[in-house]
Amino acid sequence: MNIGIIGYGYWGPNLVRNFSLVNNCKVKMVSDFRQDRLVIVSKTYPGIKVSTDPDDILLSKEIDAVVIATPVFTHFSLAKKALENGKHVLLEKPMTSSIKEAEELMNLAKQKGLLLMVDHTFLYTGAVMKMKQLINEKTIGKIQYFDSSRINLGLFQIDVNVLWDLAPHDISILLHLINKKPYSVNATGISHTKNGIENVAYLTINYSENFIAHFSCSWTSPVKLRTMLIGGDKKMLVFNDLEPSEKIRIYDTGYNYKTDEEKNRLMVDYRTGDVYIPKLESKEALFGMASDFINSITNKTEPLSNAQLGLDVIQILEASQQSIKNNGKEIIL
Amino acid sequence: MNIGIIGYGYWGPNLVRNFSLVNNCKVKMVSDFRQDRLVIVSKTYPGIKVSTDPDDILLSKEIDAVVIATPVFTHFSLAKKALENGKHVLLEKPMTSSIKEAEELMNLAKQKGLLLMVDHTFLYTGAVMKMKQLINEKTIGKIQYFDSSRINLGLFQIDVNVLWDLAPHDISILLHLINKKPYSVNATGISHTKNGIENVAYLTINYSENFIAHFSCSWTSPVKLRTMLIGGDKKMLVFNDLEPSEKIRIYDTGYNYKTDEEKNRLMVDYRTGDVYIPKLESKEALFGMASDFINSITNKTEPLSNAQLGLDVIQILEASQQSIKNNGKEIIL
Amino acid sequence: MNIGIIGYGYWGPNLVRNFSLVNNCKVKMVSDFRQDRLVIVSKTYPGIKVSTDPDDILLSKEIDAVVIATPVFTHFSLAKKALENGKHVLLEKPMTSSIKEAEELMNLAKQKGLLLMVDHTFLYTGAVMKMKQLINEKTIGKIQYFDSSRINLGLFQIDVNVLWDLAPHDISILLHLINKKPYSVNATGISHTKNGIENVAYLTINYSENFIAHFSCSWTSPVKLRTMLIGGDKKMLVFNDLEPSEKIRIYDTGYNYKTDEEKNRLMVDYRTGDVYIPKLESKEALFGMASDFINSITNKTEPLSNAQLGLDVIQILEASQQSIKNNGKEIIL
Amino acid sequence: MNIGIIGYGYWGPNLVRNFSLVNNCKVKMVSDFRQDRLVIVSKTYPGIKVSTDPDDILLSKEIDAVVIATPVFTHFSLAKKALENGKHVLLEKPMTSSIKEAEELMNLAKQKGLLLMVDHTFLYTGAVMKMKQLINEKTIGKIQYFDSSRINLGLFQIDVNVLWDLAPHDISILLHLINKKPYSVNATGISHTKNGIENVAYLTINYSENFIAHFSCSWTSPVKLRTMLIGGDKKMLVFNDLEPSEKIRIYDTGYNYKTDEEKNRLMVDYRTGDVYIPKLESKEALFGMASDFINSITNKTEPLSNAQLGLDVIQILEASQQSIKNNGKEIIL
Repeated sequence: MNIGIIGYGYWGPNLVRNFSLVNNCKVKMVSDFRQDRLVIVSKTYPGIKVSTDPDDILLSKEIDAVVIATPVFTHFSLAKKALENGKHVLLEKPMTSSIKEAEELMNLAKQKGLLLMVDHTFLYTGAVMKMKQLINEKTIGKIQYFDSSRINLGLFQIDVNVLWDLAPHDISILLHLINKKPYSVNATGISHTKNGIENVAYLTINYSENFIAHFSCSWTSPVKLRTMLIGGDKKMLVFNDLEPSEKIRIYDTGYNYKTDEEKNRLMVDYRTGDVYIPKLESKEALFGMASDFINSITNKTEPLSNAQLGLDVIQILEASQQSIKNNGKEIIL
Repeated sequence: MNIGIIGYGYWGPNLVRNFSLVNNCKVKMVSDFRQDRLVIVSKTYPGIKVSTDPDDILLSKEIDAVVIATPVFTHFSLAKKALENGKHVLLEKPMTSSIKEAEELMNLAKQKGLLLMVDHTFLYTGAVMKMKQLINEKTIGKIQYFDSSRINLGLFQIDVNVLWDLAPHDISILLHLINKKPYSVNATGISHTKNGIENVAYLTINYSENFIAHFSCSWTSPVKLRTMLIGGDKKMLVFNDLEPSEKIRIYDTGYNYKTDEEKNRLMVDYRTGDVYIPKLESKEALFGMASDFINSITNKTEPLSNAQLGLDVIQILEASQQSIKNNGKEIIL
Repeated sequence: MNIGIIGYGYWGPNLVRNFSLVNNCKVKMVSDFRQDRLVIVSKTYPGIKVSTDPDDILLSKEIDAVVIATPVFTHFSLAKKALENGKHVLLEKPMTSSIKEAEELMNLAKQKGLLLMVDHTFLYTGAVMKMKQLINEKTIGKIQYFDSSRINLGLFQIDVNVLWDLAPHDISILLHLINKKPYSVNATGISHTKNGIENVAYLTINYSENFIAHFSCSWTSPVKLRTMLIGGDKKMLVFNDLEPSEKIRIYDTGYNYKTDEEKNRLMVDYRTGDVYIPKLESKEALFGMASDFINSITNKTEPLSNAQLGLDVIQILEASQQSIKNNGKEIIL
Repeated sequence: MNIGIIGYGYWGPNLVRNFSLVNNCKVKMVSDFRQDRLVIVSKTYPGIKVSTDPDDILLSKEIDAVVIATPVFTHFSLAKKALENGKHVLLEKPMTSSIKEAEELMNLAKQKGLLLMVDHTFLYTGAVMKMKQLINEKTIGKIQYFDSSRINLGLFQIDVNVLWDLAPHDISILLHLINKKPYSVNATGISHTKNGIENVAYLTINYSENFIAHFSCSWTSPVKLRTMLIGGDKKMLVFNDLEPSEKIRIYDTGYNYKTDEEKNRLMVDYRTGDVYIPKLESKEALFGMASDFINSITNKTEPLSNAQLGLDVIQILEASQQSIKNNGKEIIL
C-alpha cells in the first residue's frame, strides 16, 4: 500500500513516522506548499519524494491512499479529487467545514468503493480504550453526565473557531463512549480578535434521555487543562490527559436517593470509597489509527474512527456555531 | 449591640463564633427548630439563650439585629418580620427566592431606616481582596473573561437548584470585581432526581462589552474544584480556593494580535513569563463580614456586601432558572 | 475516671476536647503556668478547674489520671510525682529526655501498678491503621525500605533538636509497622542558631536484616512535606499526610531480578501496574488514643501506644544525637 | 571539527542530534559493539559512518574529538587512548571509576594540550542558570542548606551503585552553585540484590562553614522525585525538575532569630511572603553543552563543565562509597 501525505505542518511528521512503521504500507510522497517543510522531509527521510503541488500525489498512479493534514477549509476539495482519482482517503479532524461537504464525500466514497476515514486519534489511546471497556463492562453504571475542559494558551486558528479546533477530540470521545443520540445543542462564546472568530466557547449537548454533556474550550487560558469527568450511577471517572501515566481515576463514589413521600422531601445517601488508577496501554495511539486505516482498506472492514463519526462530530460543530450566532439558542440536531 | 441568630445548621456555629469576637456585639439568642442543635449551643456557649421558636428572637425587645441562616425559602418571611419589628437584618446568601421578595425587603428596610445586608462572605477573603486590588491597580489590564468551576459531591438542597446553592459565591465575586453591567444569561442543566431540581448546571453571563463570564456548578462530581480564571489583556489570574495558602497565581501571560491587512490573516504573538503568587491576608473572612455588619449599623454606612449586591445576584439566578426552563434561551436582564 | 491535664499549649485544647468526649471520663482540672491560657480554658469550659500550679493536679485526691503536655525537659519530674501520688500517666511524645528517665518511670509505674502510656497519636490514624492492615495481610510483601520526610517552616524548640521534635511521629510509625529490631543509627545535622540545636537533621536506622529506614527532618524548609515511602517486594506504598483524603497510595510496582550466572550480570524485570487509593477511617485519631488510655486503665490491658514503644523511640533519638555529635558515627542500639 | 561518538545507548541519539546542530562541527562516526544500534544510526543518519570497533574512531586521522558515552568502567581506557592519539575528549558523567583514573587523564590532556571535558548537562539548563544568577545576585542570601531527592523506579546499573548513577547530576549542581569547599561526607545505603550494589543510598556532605548538603537516591521508589531545596538566609528556593515549565519557585520565606540573653531563650520571628516563579530559558541544555565543548576547543578556553568539576564529583562519590562500606563513618575529603 503506497501512501501520499498532503500537509507537513505540526501533525505531518507524526503521520509520516507512524505510517512508516505500519506493515504493508510505504510512505511514497509528501506534499506541502512550503518549500522549507519539504527540505526537512528530505533530510529526515531521503527515500520519500516531495512536491509543493498536491496534484503530484492526487494524480499519481503509484499512490493507493492519501492522508490529508491541511487546514480544514481545504479538506473537501483535496479529498474529493483524491476519491475521484480512486484513492482511499484519511482526513484529519475536523473532517470538513460543513455537513454538506462531509455527506458529499461519504457518498462519493461509497459510490467508488473506497475507504473514507477521519483521524480521531483519541479513540486509539490507552485512556479511551480503558474508559470504553469500563463503560461496556457496566463498571460505571448508567452514565449521567460528561464534562470536558480543554483550555490553554493555544494557537489561534485563522479559519475555524476554538470549538472547531479543540472540541472534536472530546466530542469524538463522547460519541464513541456513550451510546446515546444527541438531541440538541446550546453554545455561547466570545471573540477577542477583530476577525470575530471565537477564542473562548462553551457547548452543552442535550439528550432526550437523562444525560447531559458540556465542553469548555479556550485558546486564552494561562493554565492548561485536559480534563474529562464522566459520572455514572455506580462510579465516577476522571480522565486527566496531562498526567504522565495516571490519566484515569475511577472513584467508587456516588449517592442513592429516594423521595420521602410523606414529607415530600429528598433523602440522599452519599458514598465515597476507594479510588482506583488502572495501568493503561502505552502504545502510541497514532500508530493504532494508522494501522486501522491500512487494515480496513486491506480487509474491507469499517474502521473504529469512521466517516460517520466524523460526520456526527461536524453536525454538532455546525449546530454549535449556529447556536453561538443566535445568542445561545437551542439548535435541534 | 445584641444579636439573635436564627438557624444553627452548618454555618450557624461559625456565625456565633465570629459575632462573639466582634467588638460592641453580643450574641444573645440562637433559635433552631431542631432541639438537638440547641443542646449543642447550650453546651458550648452556656451564656446564650436558645429557643425553637424564631419569634422569641424576632419579637424580643433585647435584640437589635438578626442574622438569618435558614433555608432560602424561609428568608423572606423571617427577614420581613425582623424589619417590621425594628431589627437590622443580615441574610445568608442567596438573599431570597425571588427578585420580588428582595426588592420588598429592601424597600421595607429603607422605609424603617434599618440595615439590610447579605452575607457574601467571599468578598472579605484575602484572595478576593487581593484580586480586587490587582484589578483596581490595572495589573491585569482590560478584563476579557471570567470562568468559574465549583463542583464536588455536595449536599443536595431541597428547595433550590445547584446554581442557587453554589453560584452566589462566584457571581458575587464577579459583580464585586468587574465593574460592568451584565446584559443577559444563558443556562443549561440537568436533574438526576425525581424532584426536578438541577444538580448539574452551566451558566453564561453575556455583556454588551467584550467580556464573558461562565460558571460550572455540580453537586455530583467525584472531585472537588473551586477554581476561577480571570483573563486580562495584560495578565491572567487563577484563583484556586482549595490551595491552603497559594490561592492566587498571576501569570505574566498573554498575546498581542494584529490583522495582516494584505493577506487578511491574523498575526498573533504569544507571551509567557513569570508567575507570581502573592501572600494573602489570612484573617478569617467571616469575622470581616460580621465586623462590617456591626460597623455599618453603628456608623450608618453602607457595607461592602450590601443588599443591592444581594439583589443583583438574585436577578442573575432568577434569569438563569428561566433560561434552563426555556432550553437555554437567552434571558435579557 | 477524673483527668487532670498539665500544659495547655498547642496540643492542650485538642486533649481537653477529646478526653471530654470519652465515656467514663471527665476532665476535672487543667494546669498551665501562663494565666492567659487558663482564661481561655475557663471561657470555653466553665466546668473545668484551672490552676497555675501543677501540684494542684498532682496532689489532688480527685484526680485518677494525669495527662502531661509540657516541654520535654519537664516530663520526667512531673510524671514521677504523678506516679508517686498514685495517678496513671499519659505523656506527650517524646516520652522523656533520656532512656534513663524513661526506664525509671516505667519501673515506678510497674511497681505502683499504674498505667504509663505515651501519646504517639499517629498509631490511631486511619492511615496508619490501613498501612498496618496492608502489611499484616502480606499485601506489600517483604518490606525493604522505609523513607520519611517531615519538613516545613516550623517552630524552633528551645530544649530539643529537630529530630526529637519531629521524628518521634515517624519512628513510632516505623516501630509499629515493621516488626524488626533496629541494629544501629547514623545521623547528621546542622544548627543555624547560636544555641547549637540542630534545625535540619538526617537519620538512618540500620537493621541486621536487609532493611533500611531513613528520616529527613527540618524546621527551615519553605515547603511542607509529610511523606513516607514503604517499599515491599510485592507492592510499594506512599503515605502523604498532606492529602486531605487520598493519604495512602498503593502501587502495584516492583521488579524481579536474577543473576545471569554465565555473564555475571544482573537481569532485572520491572513492573508498573495499577494504583489503588483506599478509603480510610476518618475518626479523629486523638479520640482513639484517649479512649485507649481510659480503656487500658479500666480493663488493665496494654495500650497500643505503650511505654515500651515510647522508650524504643527515645533510645533511637538518644543514639541519633550521639551520632550527630560524633560526626555521623554509627551508634549500635 | 570532526566528531566521533563511542556508545549509542540511551544518551547516544541525543548526542548525535545535538552535535549535528552545532556550528563548525560534524558527526563523522558512531561506534557501538551492538550491531542493531548501528543499524538505527545508519537509517536515521545515512551520512554517518558506523563501526563496532571503537578503534576505528580512536585511531582515525579524520576525527578531531571523541565523545565517550559508554558504561563508566570503560571510560578511562577509551579516553586515555583518545588523548594519546591527539583527540579532544568529552566524557559522559561520572567521569571515571576513581580519582586516580580522573587525575591521570587530566595530566595526560594537559601534557598533550588537549581539551578534556565532562558532560554535566544540568549546568546548561535554564533552571540551573537561573539558580546560579539568583545566588550570584545575592537574592537568596547566605546559603544554609542544600537538599536533593532523585528517586524513581530506575534501571539498575551493573557496574556502579545508585549514588554513582544518579548523584553526579546533583553534586555537580551543588559544586557549580555553591562556592564553598566540602570538608567530609557520610553515606548510608542498602542493596536488595545479590551483587551488593546499593540501590538506595543517602549522602551528607559536610562543610567547615555553616552549611550542609544532603542527597537521597533510589532506583526502587514507586514515585519519581527530582527535587532540590536550597535555603538561604534571605529567601528559599525549590527546584522541581518534573514540573514542565514551573521548575523554580522562590519563596520569600525565612526567619530571624536572636538570643534572649537574660532568659537564655531563643526568640524566632518567622516570615512567609510571596512566591515567585521565574520564566526559564528553554533552549535544550545538551546543545549548550555541545556548543561549549566545540567553542572551548576552538577558542582554547575552559568550558563550564570542566574536568576539574568532573574530578571533584568523583572525589565525593569515592568518599561516599568508602563511607557506606565503613558503616557511615565520616570520610574527610
